[in-house]
Amino acid sequence: MKSIQSYKYLIHFNKNSYAEINSYLADNLPTKIFVLVDENSHEHCYPVFIQQVETKSDIEILEIESGEENKNIQTCINLWNVLTELGADRNSLIINLGGGVITDMGGFVASTFKRGIRFINIPTTLLSMVDASAGGKTGVDLGVLKNQVGMFSNPEMVLIDSQYLTTISSREMRSGMAEVIKYGLTYDARLWDRSKNFTGFIADEIDSLIYRSIEIKNEVVLKDPKEYGLRKVLNYGHTLGHAIESYFLESKNKENLTHGEAIAIGMITEAFISYKLFNFPKNILEEIKKHIITIFGKTVIEKEEFSPIMELLIHDKKNTNGDVNFVLLTNLENYKFNCKVSKELIVESLDYYLS
Amino acid sequence: MKSIQSYKYLIHFNKNSYAEINSYLADNLPTKIFVLVDENSHEHCYPVFIQQVETKSDIEILEIESGEENKNIQTCINLWNVLTELGADRNSLIINLGGGVITDMGGFVASTFKRGIRFINIPTTLLSMVDASAGGKTGVDLGVLKNQVGMFSNPEMVLIDSQYLTTISSREMRSGMAEVIKYGLTYDARLWDRSKNFTGFIADEIDSLIYRSIEIKNEVVLKDPKEYGLRKVLNYGHTLGHAIESYFLESKNKENLTHGEAIAIGMITEAFISYKLFNFPKNILEEIKKHIITIFGKTVIEKEEFSPIMELLIHDKKNTNGDVNFVLLTNLENYKFNCKVSKELIVESLDYYLS
Repeated sequence: MKSIQSYKYLIHFNKNSYAEINSYLADNLPTKIFVLVDENSHEHCYPVFIQQVETKSDIEILEIESGEENKNIQTCINLWNVLTELGADRNSLIINLGGGVITDMGGFVASTFKRGIRFINIPTTLLSMVDASAGGKTGVDLGVLKNQVGMFSNPEMVLIDSQYLTTISSREMRSGMAEVIKYGLTYDARLWDRSKNFTGFIADEIDSLIYRSIEIKNEVVLKDPKEYGLRKVLNYGHTLGHAIESYFLESKNKENLTHGEAIAIGMITEAFISYKLFNFPKNILEEIKKHIITIFGKTVIEKEEFSPIMELLIHDKKNTNGDVNFVLLTNLENYKFNCKVSKELIVESLDYYLS
Repeated sequence: MKSIQSYKYLIHFNKNSYAEINSYLADNLPTKIFVLVDENSHEHCYPVFIQQVETKSDIEILEIESGEENKNIQTCINLWNVLTELGADRNSLIINLGGGVITDMGGFVASTFKRGIRFINIPTTLLSMVDASAGGKTGVDLGVLKNQVGMFSNPEMVLIDSQYLTTISSREMRSGMAEVIKYGLTYDARLWDRSKNFTGFIADEIDSLIYRSIEIKNEVVLKDPKEYGLRKVLNYGHTLGHAIESYFLESKNKENLTHGEAIAIGMITEAFISYKLFNFPKNILEEIKKHIITIFGKTVIEKEEFSPIMELLIHDKKNTNGDVNFVLLTNLENYKFNCKVSKELIVESLDYYLS
């Protein structure tokens, strides 16, 4: 598969990607290579990775605990300290090998260590492959607020190897599928059609679903690197979705949702709001609800939970001036930005989801 | 005085600067303005500032405790949380009003909050005026390691008003003067000559010393934004100087040095090393020692303190691969980068300083 040119770096695929990283390492001779992993990617992905990599530089493994709850500044402080102790300098390289927590946080730690050292991302989950390969977003959570602290910063390159997907659970696969569906609904109706065949397992066509998703994301972020316009389309399903994800994360008595499970709810509710405000076709709305619930199941949300979710909505970093801004659909592949939505209609959309 | 064009922003001077900020605020209408101060700049500078500023935006004051020991990630966490609580969004503006701690840390907090909001710097000490106006460095300390965490990020504009200097102590004035001397030695022998008249008080010519210093710094950083080459000249006196500053900061039983007091020692010792390695003229070396000690006095450093200072040298973020890199002088206005210096010669240079 042909490499995709993103802003200032390339995204390489499968077998070819290891030749690319090896040639990069030979050309750049990092003083030291730090591979950031969690216990899962350490056990399942690192052995695959290390077998393919050839370098004369010393490699150190930095392992952090998996889980969104560790994607915070305290973990960054630990990493900055460990990098210091291990003698990382400006010519060191960090390779982020793992899911979105690893690539987001590892990118942030690298970009802020000694005012910025180089990093390479190797996403190992479907979500991080299709979501984090293009766009240069790095960041960590602040309390329950996702990615509240971070910056835009580009990796040296991104490597996509779908064989890492054999190491993740089908729940994690579904989580990434939510983003594929989002690209389909907002940008490519054919991709939406193809995503309906998704069973939770790795089919032959996963490579092409990933490739097309990254192509779309890359096209969008190159046209609007700092999220002043078009890039907002990527927030479809994410406005309400993020608030619900944060709510489940901060509720001690509820099991966390995956990102995709939360965005699945967001895509259904925001399709409903689109139907109400912009005549988004009712048959497609119902199809969206049916297919998404088939894949993700239905999450229980109690009436009394609506209000704390609304509170979190207002703190979403995409909302300026206290208003909540939605991206809505007028049809498949057709969107509208900066839609203000009343509290009542948001509640109605949650009722629709739960009905 | 004519505004200076830095990378993507302007540096404005004295009376004219308030007209510029007022027109910026009218054009950009920030949703909220946060003025970051410490207790000193709050008491002495904020009243002057607020009298000149006209805006329809709400202004909130964020006060932190003064002092380098508060320039750390914990203070950033507090600030990110307060910004969140006060409803800061992507169209909010942070105005950093204070010394280098305020402008370095405020720039970092702004550049990482919600992946970056806008900020304006108004340095109120001589050091922050001549050192932090150009170059886009932001950052905080990690333990005793200065600016170990940070990034390059540009303010919307910088305002220099020398009337704020009436609010700082003569010790703080001297601290800034060390940087002026550095620009003189490395880049402008006439500036070095003029700096010899400095008495610790604000003379009429302070405006022109500031202006010339910023011009030099700006020229250097524009030619080398990411410190791959020429910008290293700015580290003259700072290699050993930073290590000594860190050492005094981490030693509980020693009074902290100002940045300038530490750099003063660095400039003398590094001039001595320059004399030893590159025949830097002996008469100028002696003149440097005499004038700098007249201004800054002589700091007591015991023999047994040399070794912990050497340890800190190795961790300086400018040093790659465990080597210590010095910028040395072959003559006034003539420098050499990446000079490796033996431990013995460093010790000898400290002996020369103390002799």
